[in-house]
Amino acid sequence: MVSKNQIKLITSLQQKKYRKIHQLFIAEGRKVISELIHADFELVSLFVTQEGIFENKWPSTLISESELKKISALTTPNDCLAVFKIKEIKFSSEDQLILALDTIRDPGNMGTIIRLCDWFGIQKIVCSPETVDIYNPKVVQATMGSLARVEVIYKQLEDFLSSSKIPVFGTFMEGDSIYNLELPSHGIIVMGNEANGISKSVEKLITQKISIPRFGNLQVTESLNVATATAIILSEFKKRLY
Amino acid sequence: MVSKNQIKLITSLQQKKYRKIHQLFIAEGRKVISELIHADFELVSLFVTQEGIFENKWPSTLISESELKKISALTTPNDCLAVFKIKEIKFSSEDQLILALDTIRDPGNMGTIIRLCDWFGIQKIVCSPETVDIYNPKVVQATMGSLARVEVIYKQLEDFLSSSKIPVFGTFMEGDSIYNLELPSHGIIVMGNEANGISKSVEKLITQKISIPRFGNLQVTESLNVATATAIILSEFKKRLY
Repeated sequence: MVSKNQIKLITSLQQKKYRKIHQLFIAEGRKVISELIHADFELVSLFVTQEGIFENKWPSTLISESELKKISALTTPNDCLAVFKIKEIKFSSEDQLILALDTIRDPGNMGTIIRLCDWFGIQKIVCSPETVDIYNPKVVQATMGSLARVEVIYKQLEDFLSSSKIPVFGTFMEGDSIYNLELPSHGIIVMGNEANGISKSVEKLITQKISIPRFGNLQVTESLNVATATAIILSEFKKRLY
Repeated sequence: MVSKNQIKLITSLQQKKYRKIHQLFIAEGRKVISELIHADFELVSLFVTQEGIFENKWPSTLISESELKKISALTTPNDCLAVFKIKEIKFSSEDQLILALDTIRDPGNMGTIIRLCDWFGIQKIVCSPETVDIYNPKVVQATMGSLARVEVIYKQLEDFLSSSKIPVFGTFMEGDSIYNLELPSHGIIVMGNEANGISKSVEKLITQKISIPRFGNLQVTESLNVATATAIILSEFKKRLY
């Protein structure tokens, strides 16, 4: 059974405001939930529509499918939903690659970028305060559990970049081709907003402008989708370290 | 004014079945429409909610915003919608890179992949018959006009690959790292379905299995999103040709 108060609390977590107040977020589906549990996210409650989905040591509440529908953020709910505590992130070391996101708005792009970081072993992401919340249910679903292995903080990028002592890369049309540059093993890679790219105040703090060259005629696509551009750039940075 | 019959026809074009019967598709938004016109797609009708959006030589019908809402496939319609004839594609040359899609289902992924092909100068895509239709309104919107410069055909991949004489690449977990291979300037790159990867019958026709190596601990993301994987692979193939 889910109580009315639980329904109210859980559905409120679809909004950033209430996630912040309660310091809780929801995750749905067996894979995402079990990855988050194993990554030491603190499980607050677990609802299942059948017994035996998870190990017995994780206490769960059996609910009906119609109850799950009431608390789910998905159009087609899975068979389980969990509420987790938001993790406090400590974030200091500078001896690695860090991704900085300058106002990424689309939850799908954000989820894809987190999966990419997981794939390429990037463990730290700094987001501008206007970037979509990683605990947004759509982001949690799109990350496919990678969220558990990537640390994300929200901070004014201007403050973060100006206090950092490592090179800062940013993608610009007129930047140097990433195919020709000697890319270091540590640095901050800034990716810009879907529509407007990197903001003026952040651009001032970029120490190396880079670009992904395009082929073919001049009339081509103006820009790549931010998630696919991130894929290509992370691939170029990391392949040298194999 | 839009007549009842026009509304019926245009909204029917949101379904593949009727696009096939009428050999027509819809596009919305100034950028997409003008790119398609300039790429010699045959304009059948053009609806605008204000004068002066397009050059006068393209005949257009002025309609109200509520009429546009009736014919639009978008939740938030733009200020224009066009109906185009589907292009007949001739497709022969083998002296280049060709992308083959083995049942890509998601319109967003499909749109992103077409934009990537445009960026990297890949002009030919062969899709399995089960792949999402490129004239699906969501794909047309996601391509941002790149559709105009990339030729797409639908064909049984088994037939296409077995009759081709150029190398066939496919991504598999156990494939050779793309970072270490000598990649040719011509060949067919097969990308598999979002959930199931490349099908067994297509796998048999792959002449070189490739992979994007992953970093970090073993518990990482099982696979990359197909659009981001395509981004990295096309980047690796094309960068050698700069």
